[in-house]
Amino acid sequence: MEFDPESLKFDSNGLIPCIAQDVDTREVLMMAWMNAASVARTLGSGKVTYWSRSRQAFWVKGESSGHAQTLAELRFDCDRDCLLALVRQVGPACHTNRRSCFYTAVRGGAEVEIMEPVAD
Amino acid sequence: MEFDPESLKFDSNGLIPCIAQDVDTREVLMMAWMNAASVARTLGSGKVTYWSRSRQAFWVKGESSGHAQTLAELRFDCDRDCLLALVRQVGPACHTNRRSCFYTAVRGGAEVEIMEPVAD
Repeated sequence: MEFDPESLKFDSNGLIPCIAQDVDTREVLMMAWMNAASVARTLGSGKVTYWSRSRQAFWVKGESSGHAQTLAELRFDCDRDCLLALVRQVGPACHTNRRSCFYTAVRGGAEVEIMEPVAD
Repeated sequence: MEFDPESLKFDSNGLIPCIAQDVDTREVLMMAWMNAASVARTLGSGKVTYWSRSRQAFWVKGESSGHAQTLAELRFDCDRDCLLALVRQVGPACHTNRRSCFYTAVRGGAEVEIMEPVAD
């Protein structure tokens, strides 16, 4: 069946969450949002392209930082309301320069940072 | 620093997305939603407990299906607006009886099912 980005289920703002996972290490890198047009751009260009809610603009990951995400495969879930992008990540995915945005764990009731920023 | 579920950033419905990842295989299993109380219950009980938006009730994963998720570790992202639960999953995570909800890939412009339901 041909895939149509409009067939996904978007929230009231026209957005769908997209989880980015490193295709090789399987590390979950980040979660950000896409609209139908950014899904189409991601598939068309192979460059993972989110929708920035703060800037209300396309956000080609790494365009300014150089920390690009190349799409290996796009998947979606049974409810068609969440995306999983398997990516090849250049450098850190997080704006704090950590490999993943999920660098804080809850251990013994306390917040623990489990990941150091990558050296430039 | 002590962790307070209320310190997370919830959306206008009081919810935060939670990605469930198999702690051993690193497979992304599903994404569902939590409110502050379900985060607290998950940490307190070790049973991953979402908030069902359709039923407007706590959803202890696997309580009716038997396909429970035991929490290995809870993490959150740099913006404190997304959770990552590392879990031990009994049986399939998806209500379609597939191991993961992300069983459909976009390949060559078409929807392709890449995962079979698990035999009971």
